[in-house]
Amino acid sequence: MSILKSLLAGDKRAIAQTISMVENDIDTAILERIFRHTGRAYHVGITGPPGAGKSTLVNAISKRLLKKNKKIGIIAVDPTSPFSGGALLGDRVRMTDLALHENIFIRSMASRGSLGGLAQATKDAALVLDAAGMDYILIETIGVGQVELDIAEVCDTTVVVLVPESGDSIQAMKAGLLEIADIMVVNKGDREGCERLVTELKFALEMREQKSGWPYPIMKTTATKDEGIEELVSAVESHAGHLVKTGSLEKERKSKLLLRVHELIEQKIRLHLRESFIRENELVKLVDRIYKRQLSPYRVAERITKELVRSSR
Amino acid sequence: MSILKSLLAGDKRAIAQTISMVENDIDTAILERIFRHTGRAYHVGITGPPGAGKSTLVNAISKRLLKKNKKIGIIAVDPTSPFSGGALLGDRVRMTDLALHENIFIRSMASRGSLGGLAQATKDAALVLDAAGMDYILIETIGVGQVELDIAEVCDTTVVVLVPESGDSIQAMKAGLLEIADIMVVNKGDREGCERLVTELKFALEMREQKSGWPYPIMKTTATKDEGIEELVSAVESHAGHLVKTGSLEKERKSKLLLRVHELIEQKIRLHLRESFIRENELVKLVDRIYKRQLSPYRVAERITKELVRSSR
Repeated sequence: MSILKSLLAGDKRAIAQTISMVENDIDTAILERIFRHTGRAYHVGITGPPGAGKSTLVNAISKRLLKKNKKIGIIAVDPTSPFSGGALLGDRVRMTDLALHENIFIRSMASRGSLGGLAQATKDAALVLDAAGMDYILIETIGVGQVELDIAEVCDTTVVVLVPESGDSIQAMKAGLLEIADIMVVNKGDREGCERLVTELKFALEMREQKSGWPYPIMKTTATKDEGIEELVSAVESHAGHLVKTGSLEKERKSKLLLRVHELIEQKIRLHLRESFIRENELVKLVDRIYKRQLSPYRVAERITKELVRSSR
Repeated sequence: MSILKSLLAGDKRAIAQTISMVENDIDTAILERIFRHTGRAYHVGITGPPGAGKSTLVNAISKRLLKKNKKIGIIAVDPTSPFSGGALLGDRVRMTDLALHENIFIRSMASRGSLGGLAQATKDAALVLDAAGMDYILIETIGVGQVELDIAEVCDTTVVVLVPESGDSIQAMKAGLLEIADIMVVNKGDREGCERLVTELKFALEMREQKSGWPYPIMKTTATKDEGIEELVSAVESHAGHLVKTGSLEKERKSKLLLRVHELIEQKIRLHLRESFIRENELVKLVDRIYKRQLSPYRVAERITKELVRSSR
C-alpha cells in the first residue's frame, strides 16, 4: 500500500518502481488499483523521423511548461532519443539535467519482451504517470512503424516534427505521419528549404481541415535556440481547448478506452493460449503434419479456436 | 477452380488476383487450398534503412537469379521502394522493366486495414507466390519497426543492407538489425567509410558466430554497378546449404509454422471478439463507466474473457 500512496503523491522513486513492475510483469493488479486515479493528465505525442530534433523540442517544451508550474512526465520510445540514452553524450548530459527537476519524471521504454509489446508497456507507463499527478505526459516516438501508430492512439494531441532537409525517406514517412498529426512542426526552421516544406504541408493538410474544423497549424521552431516554443505550447493548449469545446476529448478518450478493453481481452486470450498449448505434444505433432503439408495451419487454428472459444452469445 | 489451376501453373494474372483476394478478405479458403502446394520456395528478406539501396540490390539479385533460370517473386513492403512506387520516377521505370520478365512477379504491400495487418498480408502473399512455383521469394522491407521484424520471421535468410554514410538513425537501427541478419551487406561500397563500417560489423557479429556456427558474412556491394552481386547470391546459397546441412531449415520452418498457428488463432479470436462486442450497447455502457473511473478496463476485460474462453483443458 505504501508504494501506491507514494505514487499517488508523485514520489519519483515510487513512479519508477511502479513502471518497472508494470513493464516486467503482466500482473495488472497495480494498474487496476491506480486506474481510478487517472484521466487527468493531458497526453501529447511528439513524433517524427530520426534527426528531426524531437528530444530537443521535448526538452524546450518541458522547460516552458515547468515555468507554468506544470508537472511533466516524459516517455521516450525513440531509440535515437537522448532521453533513452540513444544519442550523443552531450545531449544525454543536458537531458539528465532536466531529469533532476522535481516536477519532471523521464522514462525511456525499450522492452519488446512483454506480451503486449512496446506500445502496451508505453500505455501502461503513461497510466502510472497520470496517476502520479502529472499535468502533461509527453511521449516521444520515432515516426515509423506500427508501434508508434499504436502509441499515437493514446495521445490527445499528436505533434509531428519534420525538418527542411528531408530526404526521400522522410518524404515517404510524411504521408503516414500527416494522417495522425494535430500540429505540424517544421524544426530547424533556420535552415534552407523551410518555407517550401511549410507550403507543401499546408497543401497536404487543407483537406483534413475541412473535415474536422481544426485548422491544423504548421509551426516553425528552432528548438536549439528556443525559438517558436512558446507558440507551439500555445498551439497544444488551443488544440486541447478545441477538443473540449467540440466534445471530441471525451469522445476520443472513450473510443480509446474501448480499444484498450479489446486489447486487454486479446492479451489475456493470447496468454491463455500460450499457457494451454505452447508446450503441448499434441500441437508439436500437428506442426509436424503441417510441415509435411498433410494439414494446413488454417484448419488447425480453426479447430483449436473452436475448442477454446465459446459459441457466440 | 480455374484460378487455382492458373495460379499453380504460375500465371501472373492469377497470382495477382489471388493475392488481392487474400489481402482484402479474411476468408482463408483459398489459402487452405493452396497450402499443400507450398514449402518449396526459398524466402530471402532484404532489409535496411531507407536509402540503403535495397531495391537496386533486389533488382541486381533478381537479374542474377533469372540467369540461373530461377522464378522469382518480389514483395516490396518498404514504402520508399521503387517497387512499391515510393521512389523516383527513373527507378520506377527501371523496375517496371524487370516486372515484364515472364519469370518475375512483383507485388507491393501497403494495406494496413486487415485484421492481421501488414505483416500478415505479406506472409499470405508469400504463400501465394510459393504455391505459384517461385524458386525464390525476395521480401524487401524498411528495417525498422515491429512489422518488419514479424516479416523477417517468415524468411529463411535475412540480408541486412547498410551504407557507409550512416547517420545517427542508422546507428540506432543497427543493433536491432544485427540480431536478425544472416548476411550483412555494405552497399555503396565505393563510398568513404566503407571499411570502417565493415570492421564495426565484424566486431559486432563475432559473438553471434560463435553461438550458431554460421560465419555471418559481410559483403561489399555496389548494386548500381552490379558489383559484388554474384558473391552475395553465392552467400545466400551457402546459407541455404548451411541451414539444410545442420537441420536448421526444417527446425526453423516448423517453429515458424507453430507461430503461424498461434497467430491465426489470435486472429480468429480477435475477429470473433469484434463481431460479438464491438457494436454492443452493453460494452458502450461499460466504457462510459470506465471513462467515469467507476470501473477499470482490466476488470471489464477479465470478465469478458472469462465469458468468452472456456476453462483450460
